[in-house]
Amino acid sequence: MTDSILVLNAGSSSLKFSVFAREADALRLRSHGQIEGLTTDSHFVAHDADGAVVAERSFSGAIGHERATGFLLDHYLDTPGTTLRAVGHRVVHGGTEYAAPVRLDAGVIHALEALIPLAPLHQPHNLAPIRVLHERVPDIPQVACFDTAFHRTQPEIAQAFALPPKIERHGVHRYGFHGLSYEFIARRLPEVDAVAARGRTVVLHLGNGASMCALVGGRSVATTMGFTALEGLPMGTRCGSLDPGVVLFMQQQLGLSVSEVEHVLYHESGLLGVSGVSSDMRSLESSDDPRAKRAIDLLVYRIGRELGSLAAAAGGLDAIVFTAGIGENSARLREAVCRQARWIGVELDPAANARQGPRISTDGSGVGVWVIPTDEERMIAQHTDDLVAT
Amino acid sequence: MTDSILVLNAGSSSLKFSVFAREADALRLRSHGQIEGLTTDSHFVAHDADGAVVAERSFSGAIGHERATGFLLDHYLDTPGTTLRAVGHRVVHGGTEYAAPVRLDAGVIHALEALIPLAPLHQPHNLAPIRVLHERVPDIPQVACFDTAFHRTQPEIAQAFALPPKIERHGVHRYGFHGLSYEFIARRLPEVDAVAARGRTVVLHLGNGASMCALVGGRSVATTMGFTALEGLPMGTRCGSLDPGVVLFMQQQLGLSVSEVEHVLYHESGLLGVSGVSSDMRSLESSDDPRAKRAIDLLVYRIGRELGSLAAAAGGLDAIVFTAGIGENSARLREAVCRQARWIGVELDPAANARQGPRISTDGSGVGVWVIPTDEERMIAQHTDDLVAT
Repeated sequence: MTDSILVLNAGSSSLKFSVFAREADALRLRSHGQIEGLTTDSHFVAHDADGAVVAERSFSGAIGHERATGFLLDHYLDTPGTTLRAVGHRVVHGGTEYAAPVRLDAGVIHALEALIPLAPLHQPHNLAPIRVLHERVPDIPQVACFDTAFHRTQPEIAQAFALPPKIERHGVHRYGFHGLSYEFIARRLPEVDAVAARGRTVVLHLGNGASMCALVGGRSVATTMGFTALEGLPMGTRCGSLDPGVVLFMQQQLGLSVSEVEHVLYHESGLLGVSGVSSDMRSLESSDDPRAKRAIDLLVYRIGRELGSLAAAAGGLDAIVFTAGIGENSARLREAVCRQARWIGVELDPAANARQGPRISTDGSGVGVWVIPTDEERMIAQHTDDLVAT
Repeated sequence: MTDSILVLNAGSSSLKFSVFAREADALRLRSHGQIEGLTTDSHFVAHDADGAVVAERSFSGAIGHERATGFLLDHYLDTPGTTLRAVGHRVVHGGTEYAAPVRLDAGVIHALEALIPLAPLHQPHNLAPIRVLHERVPDIPQVACFDTAFHRTQPEIAQAFALPPKIERHGVHRYGFHGLSYEFIARRLPEVDAVAARGRTVVLHLGNGASMCALVGGRSVATTMGFTALEGLPMGTRCGSLDPGVVLFMQQQLGLSVSEVEHVLYHESGLLGVSGVSSDMRSLESSDDPRAKRAIDLLVYRIGRELGSLAAAAGGLDAIVFTAGIGENSARLREAVCRQARWIGVELDPAANARQGPRISTDGSGVGVWVIPTDEERMIAQHTDDLVAT
């Protein structure tokens, strides 16, 4: 019998999963997929490690988070020759308390429910499968891995807004997100650049959501996302950093309601809002609309400003790492970012960049530049395995 | 007869003024003072250039902006041996159109009134004396000098938020402020550091309001304040940069109204909010309350992050200039900022810093560091003189 670990990442309309098998000392990806359309017409698909479809099923209507979780449980509980040893969950918010993954029990679930006001759009969905499994298979250990936890090593002052205690005491801090991705990169870094791993690195997690993180000796010292996933870089449809006075202006002068403002900032801004064309970097790069170029230029410019800010937080810069969808695949964006970062010692190797790295800086570059694919699911599986073994 | 120029800076409750006399090729400060308590018990006081009180008067009750302007006009119109040649005004907002000071006429006044929604707390007060003088003494030329104008040299992309056109078209850009101070410093810089004047300089305007500006060849390329005076550094009572999600949270989860949020962010945050002690740097520095230290630490930390961000905008750093109340007077803050900026080549000369400069970096420092007093009133007088002479 092989032990397997199921990793769940529950969003508002989809439940993504991966299955890892424990083999010798390594975790091997066995399967991954999702149930999408949880609130419309639900559809399950599973791929093997090479991406081939190995199972598929359409449901009539919406099955919701609870039935979807039950379906996956049944599907993977019954796989011949394997034992479902544990389930690891991606949970967006661990507050200030959870600075590491945690084994779930009724008390912890309750504590994580109390954090819902900090992430009302994500935390409830993340917790739904946890409750189902806690009831149905209480003997299978569950682990929560947080997007925020990795950043709890930051100096207190880096996590603070200049707000009075009456606001701060409701949990208004700079938490930071994408922590599982940064942690994965931090663990890979010693293998590719030992000097940077001991030193100062800025990681660019550029996906549909995007942020940047400064690492010193592999620990987070600062990141661009703050209290919510809005702050920092412009993203697919999110605005990134914004003068808080603009939020007031949109309500007081333009007459928008707070929920209308929320919709504009989360869903109508960023690359989509500026370009008017698309939230997708590939579409923007292939468009000849000048607004598409402006959207990319704005993203590159803001990355450059944040790179300087994070280098300051780290006390200098030894390496840059590009990761996630855009970071791993857009040679054009990486080139623009690196050209803009020459002042801090970056010298790009265009040929290496064109073949997606891994090292894309010249031998003489003062700052090493790398492309390293991230793998948040594997990080969750690893944490889950570690916590269950102890 | 000596020509004189009256400079007015009208706030919500006070009307500040300076009088400059045109002597040979220079403008000499003759008098300065204010009428304060415009909406309560009004009181006029004038000092000579050395600070001695030369005139004073208390009014019974509130005289408001219009009567205050008339009083100053009468007072300085009748000064024997001088002719009031022109009046220069500090006006907070010039929108995207006014990239330089402008001579005022009915059309321009109308255009500036149209900008009131962009600065509803300041622009109406700035315009009140202009209208009074335009009616009473139409033959005396008036000039408006804008806090925003100096920043219009910035690349378009530096002035943009990642917002859709339906929001942007209402004038939602990063305008920047304190432009008259930065322009004054940019004109002084060639006299103190010719290399930095041609190169890349970050100016720290640290007063009760605070911002930073990156200059390349004496022109603004980026600044920390954006659409309003809230963004960027934490200030006396203002929050500085804030995740826009926090504004949504304060309304949606904490139940504050938009005007209550506005009050917290403008008046209860920043140094005052964090320390719980004072908005004044001198009080914080002499306090042994740990919260006072935390407020200073937070300001220093944010200055360091913005310094990196602005160095990126400038493509490197040749010099730093400290100016305005805190920048000119707090050796302790300057020392903390410079210690944190060692990574970028700053080496402080502690003895020079203790005697307030002007140069406070060592001879070997890779980045020159200066203390240069700013003088926004003189900048306004100079612009006014220039525009009236042409």
